[in-house]
Amino acid sequence: MHEVVHAPHAPHTPHIEGHFESTATVRDIVIGLSDGLTVPFALAAGLSGAIASSHIVVLAGLAEIAAGSIAMGLGGYLAARGDAEHYVSERQREEREIVERTHDEEEEVYEIFEQYSVDRASAAPALAALKQNPTAWVDFMMRFELGIEKPASNRAHRSALTIAASYIAGGFIPLLPYMLVTGNLAALKLSVIITLVALAIFGALKGKLVGTGWLRSAAQTTLIGGTAAAAAYALARLLNDAH
Amino acid sequence: MHEVVHAPHAPHTPHIEGHFESTATVRDIVIGLSDGLTVPFALAAGLSGAIASSHIVVLAGLAEIAAGSIAMGLGGYLAARGDAEHYVSERQREEREIVERTHDEEEEVYEIFEQYSVDRASAAPALAALKQNPTAWVDFMMRFELGIEKPASNRAHRSALTIAASYIAGGFIPLLPYMLVTGNLAALKLSVIITLVALAIFGALKGKLVGTGWLRSAAQTTLIGGTAAAAAYALARLLNDAH
Repeated sequence: MHEVVHAPHAPHTPHIEGHFESTATVRDIVIGLSDGLTVPFALAAGLSGAIASSHIVVLAGLAEIAAGSIAMGLGGYLAARGDAEHYVSERQREEREIVERTHDEEEEVYEIFEQYSVDRASAAPALAALKQNPTAWVDFMMRFELGIEKPASNRAHRSALTIAASYIAGGFIPLLPYMLVTGNLAALKLSVIITLVALAIFGALKGKLVGTGWLRSAAQTTLIGGTAAAAAYALARLLNDAH
Repeated sequence: MHEVVHAPHAPHTPHIEGHFESTATVRDIVIGLSDGLTVPFALAAGLSGAIASSHIVVLAGLAEIAAGSIAMGLGGYLAARGDAEHYVSERQREEREIVERTHDEEEEVYEIFEQYSVDRASAAPALAALKQNPTAWVDFMMRFELGIEKPASNRAHRSALTIAASYIAGGFIPLLPYMLVTGNLAALKLSVIITLVALAIFGALKGKLVGTGWLRSAAQTTLIGGTAAAAAYALARLLNDAH
């Protein structure tokens, strides 16, 4: 669960902005689905090892889906809105600084180039060109000094809904057997089978999309879901026996 | 739960690399704690509204903590390892390309500058300087063409353990009352109080660290946890009454 999203190679060059837009949605689906497939699955598996009533397993699973999708969607919404506000305030600051502290900002441009062994004399013409176009200069500072990418507009709402919906969709897959099949053990077996298959398919598609190998990605998502479910099952059995 | 981590202003300039290192750990703690405080809390609250036995609430909560911390830690580990491998393979490709397809790479440098209204003549001296130092040129392409930051070494293991440990630490706070207090309703009330306080303190500290206002951040984490718990509680009550 709780797929940790590492900085997705943040600042893309404008000509692949369109590509980034769509991968942002794909990323949200991936985040929601991988957590949704994993945690309710593991929780249901764990509880089914300790509790006879499939009603309680379903209840706990649905409560988890409600809690998880809201926390994840709302968390994503607030994070995206925070990013957007952060971008605007940092941009305003840079806009002020190139006017009010022009010399300092020029030095910062030289420093950026120096990191790449570009001496002052070689950097000077580029700086002169940047100074001709204040908007471009601010763009340059946003990306190369601060490393902040302009967030897509309305990203926050869409991101929140996409993540929450994907979480719910993913979470129902492992729970369905407990709703439809009589007997917790039979439901558990079926849930393990369909969820591991779903995790493998999801992992393979994710691998294809992200560009890592599909087989490796499928193995990873299956491993994560399987390990989490096995641990939850073992723990619940242990605690229940001790009780 | 499942705090969505948006690209943390990825590529920092080398002189603040040390700062970034420590914020990566802080970020992992924040990820683990915010999910750990939120989801087991909401799940336990939800179940306590429908189930009389606090034993089952604790069991479900612990199963969730096991599932969540493993899925999150393992997911984080694999993501970080994937990032590291991605960086190495992309870097090797750039190293080949500046040798084998020098002209194309030169054009790419011009294109990068063009995005900031720096014309070819003004960019030429900087390009000439980059060509003097192939390592710096590759560094430049990694960051400005691909926008990929060099991951800290051993980040994967540390990241996984930090996230999982924070998740477990956070998850125990809402569960403690169910373990110690007799009666689900009394435990629920105590759990709500201490967890909302913990969420507010955590949010305030997070806001201080990240640089958003502490009050706003405290309000947000409390809102997310509270909403998720309320929804899980309402859903579980509803389903149980319908049963």
